Amino acid sequence: VAERRSQLVLGLDPDPERLWPQALQTTGGSGGPAADRAALAVAVHCVLVMDAVAEHCVAVKLQVACFERLGAPGWAALQEVAGRARERGLLVIADAKRGDIDISAAAYGQAFFGETPTPYGAVAGLGADALTVNPLLGEDSLEPLAQSAREHRGGLFVLVRTSNPGAATLQDQQLAEGGSVSDAIAGVVDRLGRGGVGTSALSDVGAVVGATAPEHLARLREQMPNAIFLIPGVGAQGGVIADLEPAFEPGPAGGLVTVSRGIVRAHESTGEDHAGGAAHEAERLRELAWRVAG
Amino acid sequence: VAERRSQLVLGLDPDPERLWPQALQTTGGSGGPAADRAALAVAVHCVLVMDAVAEHCVAVKLQVACFERLGAPGWAALQEVAGRARERGLLVIADAKRGDIDISAAAYGQAFFGETPTPYGAVAGLGADALTVNPLLGEDSLEPLAQSAREHRGGLFVLVRTSNPGAATLQDQQLAEGGSVSDAIAGVVDRLGRGGVGTSALSDVGAVVGATAPEHLARLREQMPNAIFLIPGVGAQGGVIADLEPAFEPGPAGGLVTVSRGIVRAHESTGEDHAGGAAHEAERLRELAWRVAG
Repeated sequence: VAERRSQLVLGLDPDPERLWPQALQTTGGSGGPAADRAALAVAVHCVLVMDAVAEHCVAVKLQVACFERLGAPGWAALQEVAGRARERGLLVIADAKRGDIDISAAAYGQAFFGETPTPYGAVAGLGADALTVNPLLGEDSLEPLAQSAREHRGGLFVLVRTSNPGAATLQDQQLAEGGSVSDAIAGVVDRLGRGGVGTSALSDVGAVVGATAPEHLARLREQMPNAIFLIPGVGAQGGVIADLEPAFEPGPAGGLVTVSRGIVRAHESTGEDHAGGAAHEAERLRELAWRVAG
Repeated sequence: VAERRSQLVLGLDPDPERLWPQALQTTGGSGGPAADRAALAVAVHCVLVMDAVAEHCVAVKLQVACFERLGAPGWAALQEVAGRARERGLLVIADAKRGDIDISAAAYGQAFFGETPTPYGAVAGLGADALTVNPLLGEDSLEPLAQSAREHRGGLFVLVRTSNPGAATLQDQQLAEGGSVSDAIAGVVDRLGRGGVGTSALSDVGAVVGATAPEHLARLREQMPNAIFLIPGVGAQGGVIADLEPAFEPGPAGGLVTVSRGIVRAHESTGEDHAGGAAHEAERLRELAWRVAG
């Protein structure tokens, strides 16, 4: 963040029917099954977008659902895109929202951070720098993931208060003992992260906190003073960067602002070419966030 | 359930280091990358287990984490195993515990139930009969999944009260307005399922309710009179089939009992061969559940 003066995370949630035209042109000549061709086009699209905006960003957030729906070729594309992101100096956040009990949580840790021992040798996982995780199953479901992340110098972003309208249904429910469900999760995040606070005073267990409900930000920041906030919901969903000040209290890297469609489809409102529109919008968002954080 | 007089679901969470030896022998001669060889061995293992116990079961529950950690070949193995299960007359429950907002939830719907339109033609998803889903993001995150399931004659199992010790952290929290977090989720399950109640009085939106905390079962059954309960936690985790009576109140198909290690590793305590041990244990569990449900 300091090096690039940027808190911007490029969100990639590629829809095979809305790829940049250049991605289709590049792969238009190849034959083979639809899944292979679509997965290749998706990977090319992601690389084109990264090439356009990488200098303004610190990370990519890969929406795993969009790769998974293309089956095995989609998973191969996910690995390819993660590798290309690293080549461009971008951290890789796997937005998979995983959460499961003990053994299965450990298996997800192998899938995203580590490797899986097999009789034929170890099979490497995605090698993500961070993974979004769902805490509903409780602290013991997060521990194997936090351990796996820590062993591989990665981190977690735990869903604390999401950006969708329905988040209120459960997350904003008030508890009999005081505070909301989100507050209870914030307590878990703070506890889990204590063993992983670095020299920056930021820990390796962060929180997903949507920009669409900024009234929660200051309170959640108090409850999780060391957590990096991963902040979706800016742009299409209605969140505004100027409201995010509390996220940056621990320092400029206290908040990472993730924008997907707002960047990838910027050309639709600016009339520029795809790459130019994306680059200008990323630059604008980077400056805006840097100023709010400063 | 009526046809097979069985409520038993075979859980498959294959660990490449603990496969049935015959699965390794079959694939021992092939070369290639470790991921390909391990994924093939995993698929063979799953087919061997299904062949041993299919007649006693109504479904398989595939732990997606265990396939995902083998990357693209692992995802191909997942599709292969799902196809082999269907050939054996077993329903396929994808235990993926997915949950995400609008567009991403719809993408998971395409991945597990439907297909993804692409410029090269539609890419088929897993074709699961049911998917486990995580409701933390709220009702609007479940709706696209429920819709996708319903369109493809599938169903959901929503995490309501899981079987792990840490489930209590969040799920058992009492709410200021009364009831627990699990109770609030049960309300969502009941509402979502109302449009999908069939002639059996069972709906296409079910609930994951662990066998390890049977004190919740009767209450949750009252709150979700039409939901099929998917019940993990029997055996290794300490749950007991005799405690599950309330699950079966709407009829014998009101509860599905899922057992993984208890079946796959039954030979370790009985001294039989792998297939024989699994078959006998599956038959024993089937009878037990059928009696409790009767």
